[in-house]
Amino acid sequence: MSYYAMVLAGGSGTRFWPMSRRHLPKQLLPLVGDQTMVRQTVERLSPLLDPGRIYVVCGREHKELTARELALLPAENVIDEPMGRDTAAAIGLFAVFLEWKEPGATFAALPADHHITDPAGFQAALRRAFEIAQQGALVTFGVTPTRPATGFGYLEIDGDRVVRFCEKPNAMRAQEFVAGGRHLWNSGMFVWKAAAILHEIETHLPATFAGLKRIQAALGTSAFPAVLLHEYGLLPRISIDYGVMEKASNVRVVRADFGWDDVGSWTAAAKNRPIDANGNVVEALSARVDTNNCVIISSDDQHLLATLGVEDLVVIHTKDATLVCRKDRAEEVKKLVDEIGRQGLERLL
Amino acid sequence: MSYYAMVLAGGSGTRFWPMSRRHLPKQLLPLVGDQTMVRQTVERLSPLLDPGRIYVVCGREHKELTARELALLPAENVIDEPMGRDTAAAIGLFAVFLEWKEPGATFAALPADHHITDPAGFQAALRRAFEIAQQGALVTFGVTPTRPATGFGYLEIDGDRVVRFCEKPNAMRAQEFVAGGRHLWNSGMFVWKAAAILHEIETHLPATFAGLKRIQAALGTSAFPAVLLHEYGLLPRISIDYGVMEKASNVRVVRADFGWDDVGSWTAAAKNRPIDANGNVVEALSARVDTNNCVIISSDDQHLLATLGVEDLVVIHTKDATLVCRKDRAEEVKKLVDEIGRQGLERLL
Repeated sequence: MSYYAMVLAGGSGTRFWPMSRRHLPKQLLPLVGDQTMVRQTVERLSPLLDPGRIYVVCGREHKELTARELALLPAENVIDEPMGRDTAAAIGLFAVFLEWKEPGATFAALPADHHITDPAGFQAALRRAFEIAQQGALVTFGVTPTRPATGFGYLEIDGDRVVRFCEKPNAMRAQEFVAGGRHLWNSGMFVWKAAAILHEIETHLPATFAGLKRIQAALGTSAFPAVLLHEYGLLPRISIDYGVMEKASNVRVVRADFGWDDVGSWTAAAKNRPIDANGNVVEALSARVDTNNCVIISSDDQHLLATLGVEDLVVIHTKDATLVCRKDRAEEVKKLVDEIGRQGLERLL
Repeated sequence: MSYYAMVLAGGSGTRFWPMSRRHLPKQLLPLVGDQTMVRQTVERLSPLLDPGRIYVVCGREHKELTARELALLPAENVIDEPMGRDTAAAIGLFAVFLEWKEPGATFAALPADHHITDPAGFQAALRRAFEIAQQGALVTFGVTPTRPATGFGYLEIDGDRVVRFCEKPNAMRAQEFVAGGRHLWNSGMFVWKAAAILHEIETHLPATFAGLKRIQAALGTSAFPAVLLHEYGLLPRISIDYGVMEKASNVRVVRADFGWDDVGSWTAAAKNRPIDANGNVVEALSARVDTNNCVIISSDDQHLLATLGVEDLVVIHTKDATLVCRKDRAEEVKKLVDEIGRQGLERLL
């Protein structure tokens, strides 16, 4: 079987500011457990795939850190994008590379920043997905909704077929989705033959496809770095969901009921951590009086975070910045990052 | 006229933690304006009294910092207590010293941590108080209440006589006090002849008086340091209000309507600082999104305090500790300091 995995590690991770920074995005943080998200993602694949078959695509500015973090992989398996062009470009780039390296190969495209509580369940589902994808289908992983989440896209399904990709719904629509029983969360994980996804890109994103073909033509030549730099920068910024999957036919779903979470905010990250009797998640030197349901985290174990008479707050402390945020607004931390940028405080981004 | 002032600078200032520490109490912080509270207190007296007539009594552990801060005074005018024994002992000690140095002298006893917005009004009131005190009365300063505060003691008055000292009232009683028009806030500032207050101490605190007499007997001798250390430690811990003033007769009041505030908490301190359009007091490198009526202060102007979706919070950052506290509970910060002590985190006290 020619099965491969491509880990998408290109995120900027502004939602975990101030821990995440431009130079240290979400996937390079140990947001759940002791290991970084990207290493957990790779280690979850190890029982299924040889290290040589696991590739990681990351931003050029993160290549060194990512490679150091993933010393278990061959060095050449950490591929850097010259610049971020969203997931359609990154997946297309890997597809042309893989099809050139091994025609007919199948690969999984997996975000580097998801948390999975049942790795064995994940591996079984991935094995099934590889088998289906080998027949030519595009395979997605659908998660049975446990709540009417508005932060995820949904898949409308009919048996094992995906009838429709639905963008993030409003609260009412999310409730209809969950009540109807025909919708699953779109986990953003996919499996397909390199040739199959390239064919879909050719159909739905012809400009992207043309650029990818020019990049492919330079593979293995000394012109490659310059061609990549030039052509990749010209690719449209568009996600694989929006650019391809929403329009594709022959999309199958595999159930992803292995404790999946995309860990999209400090509040979400806290759900996977130990909780005290007052509902607090505390990973810091801390003194608390009448403090309830708070998330209190510091990267400096000598700095004391002291709280009095507060509830439902997120307090995150680092050497050069401290965040204090209402828990139910943790997904909006990007607004603060934007504000910091407007103030010209580059060193804090 | 033999007028003197004694500034009481012995406080520990736990209510301003984490800025205030054991080694850096409230009176040594610039809580309002650019100068420390103790220096403001001394400079407020300068138009009225020569530097040689202004004394400061502070804790032994704060003597060096206090003296450095008050270089405008003769060095010997900064007097250190061997240990804190509350205000009856500190005032009694200064009274025996002054009566020994200049029999018949009159002095004002003034806390080092009060804020006064109208210094000229203060100086005029103090001049009047000195004149009344010279006739033998004990003089207090009474502040016309602007709200039914429960954090201050009250004076029940009849003309310029104080009929009764009332301890901090509950909310209902405070409202009665304000509505009745016969009560003023007790500012905790006093003026009297040294001999007069010593006579009252002799009457109402005979054990304190006996100890003070033994200390007085050693004044000017080589035995003084040892005698002071021994005797002062044996003096009862009691405040001048509770131990003497509540029982004294011949107490007069001078109106203290010169913008007095005892700046008892971060919330109180914030009242004297500039406020932004959203009701925030900000003295820090700060990024704010939907942040209202907060107090945001840092001693490190390179550290960013970022707030999102919060209101009515106090956030105080220092190098080694950060406080996050509901604004209406800022007076309870001592509880956190106690908790920090219980955790054995001595370096943070």
